[in-house]
Amino acid sequence: MNDKADENDRPGFHCPVPLDRYPGVLLAHGGGGTLMHRLIEEVFVSAFSNLGLEARHDGARLDVGSVRLAFTTDSYVVKPLFFPGGDIGSLAVNGTVNDLAMCGARPLYLSAGFILEEGLPMETLQRIVGSMRRAAEAADVRLVTGDTKVVDRGKCDGMFINTAGIGIVEHALDIRPASVRPGDAVILSGDIGRHGMAVMAVREGLAFESTIESDCAALAGPVLALVQAGIEIHCLRDPTRGGLASALVEIAEAAACGVHLDEDAIPVRADVQAACEILGFDPLYVASEGRFVAFVAAGDAERALALLRAHPLGRDACRIGSVTSGGPGPVVMKCRLGGSRIVDMLSGEQLPRIC
Amino acid sequence: MNDKADENDRPGFHCPVPLDRYPGVLLAHGGGGTLMHRLIEEVFVSAFSNLGLEARHDGARLDVGSVRLAFTTDSYVVKPLFFPGGDIGSLAVNGTVNDLAMCGARPLYLSAGFILEEGLPMETLQRIVGSMRRAAEAADVRLVTGDTKVVDRGKCDGMFINTAGIGIVEHALDIRPASVRPGDAVILSGDIGRHGMAVMAVREGLAFESTIESDCAALAGPVLALVQAGIEIHCLRDPTRGGLASALVEIAEAAACGVHLDEDAIPVRADVQAACEILGFDPLYVASEGRFVAFVAAGDAERALALLRAHPLGRDACRIGSVTSGGPGPVVMKCRLGGSRIVDMLSGEQLPRIC
Repeated sequence: MNDKADENDRPGFHCPVPLDRYPGVLLAHGGGGTLMHRLIEEVFVSAFSNLGLEARHDGARLDVGSVRLAFTTDSYVVKPLFFPGGDIGSLAVNGTVNDLAMCGARPLYLSAGFILEEGLPMETLQRIVGSMRRAAEAADVRLVTGDTKVVDRGKCDGMFINTAGIGIVEHALDIRPASVRPGDAVILSGDIGRHGMAVMAVREGLAFESTIESDCAALAGPVLALVQAGIEIHCLRDPTRGGLASALVEIAEAAACGVHLDEDAIPVRADVQAACEILGFDPLYVASEGRFVAFVAAGDAERALALLRAHPLGRDACRIGSVTSGGPGPVVMKCRLGGSRIVDMLSGEQLPRIC
Repeated sequence: MNDKADENDRPGFHCPVPLDRYPGVLLAHGGGGTLMHRLIEEVFVSAFSNLGLEARHDGARLDVGSVRLAFTTDSYVVKPLFFPGGDIGSLAVNGTVNDLAMCGARPLYLSAGFILEEGLPMETLQRIVGSMRRAAEAADVRLVTGDTKVVDRGKCDGMFINTAGIGIVEHALDIRPASVRPGDAVILSGDIGRHGMAVMAVREGLAFESTIESDCAALAGPVLALVQAGIEIHCLRDPTRGGLASALVEIAEAAACGVHLDEDAIPVRADVQAACEILGFDPLYVASEGRFVAFVAAGDAERALALLRAHPLGRDACRIGSVTSGGPGPVVMKCRLGGSRIVDMLSGEQLPRIC
């Protein structure tokens, strides 16, 4: 047994194949699972760590003068551009607003970088820009700077959008994976998997009895409700690429804790569950774009739930589990039909280009 | 004659064809010329102006608490990824650092959003990431947050990179086109056109006697030297897409002033001039990535020149013209061979995908 095999066999380390065995980038390197994490650790963190890169969080926290800022970025390459419940424009605004919210920050300003494909109908661009405007107004953020590039036909599937965001941190909480403690309550703000299945259904031309709409929404409202009420929040995460399972495993590993989940407590809508069964997906790994997980001190759990349920975006909030000392990493789920199983990070790519 | 024709005939308005006559996006909409400006004005500004978009500047200036920030973004789609004097990585760092510098800000933090093509050699990615690290270290900025997406083969020519940047404004100057006044000196920090010709030559497989290297560099150093010396700077701009001509026309129009240029004073290296002649380009419209124009109060012009010439990136700085009251917009150039001509904004696309 060589060193590589040893390394890959140690518990909590989920990528069976080292990066250097892949000579080229795979779609799975963007999937939010273990391959993406290896790429980030081995290429980006190793290059940028001394430049301050915070790799295991949705954004960076920065002190500028006397002001505490959060700063984050995401590119959006969703295919198709329009899907039930949203489009690449609303997704690009809400996604970055949510990354700021997951730092516990109040989102203030966004930038927008457009990469447009030659031949993109001007009317399509205008619809998407209008959608961004409405999403920014709804989230109370200002879109203050931008950039436009045009590339040749066939080179970007209509358009890609990057947004970066600045938010202000107005509390003394240290919201990040390392703050998670055994005993913390794990609270989920609503049902999971809608965004991924909405995009997948329209992309594959699947018609279900009802149309599954993306849950795409800006989450700063319910998050700031918790912050302002003084809830002792330890970590926040929106389960996008890789889904709820990958988000929980990543946080548990970074916190050197375990998580016990109760499958029965995790809300999945019947239509999403049915679509997942037809297509062979596990909803635990399917992206949401309007949900978040909060790790809060156990004593604040009931109050946090009540606050979330009073908010339109947290009506179905529920406690789905607890943090244990059994780390680093194992997320164990008590199954609906009895028994329990280890929940792993997504190993590759389940749903390419859903955000 | 209808209203549209009237509008397009008025002086200082350089786009002969209204946007709605283009049903789709053209490469020229990304070229830095009049078509791009129409796209920005008619699509982005009309949607986002009430959200605070500053369209005629390289970045936004924001007050957050007691701190004055600059915030900017650019996407980079340069083809090919590597060119003499740089690559998409160093360009993505320096370009955004320079946009912050053009706001008179000290660059502090960058984000990086990568869109990678399936199949991109891992070694290529690592080379480019290494180049970004070196450029960030040289420019003294921290790369603090990022994002990676992967798209299918053929969908992004290897990789696109977006960077956004935050800088701090540590002076009371109001650096923007509207601050430009008749009588201001127009100072150029060095020779123009190298970046565009370097990319073009390698893309077209052209071999000249000497290799033209991109001037790609971070400009915060020489800009902050001017700021710290108390030079009364009114406006700064790096002549990237659209070249020096488009940058000057845009500023003159926004300032409702004119500009008188002296062709003889504008430095163009002999190899760049020769390559432009062979390919039929006018160096006034060819992008630089390590040069800037400063509009300064006339009384400070000599001191500004001395400061710039003392800096390695400003050794060839020179005064190329003056601001006149003859606005809005005409940029008039006294030609080397006698006579003078009106310098217009680039009307479409001269060099696609050079940044």
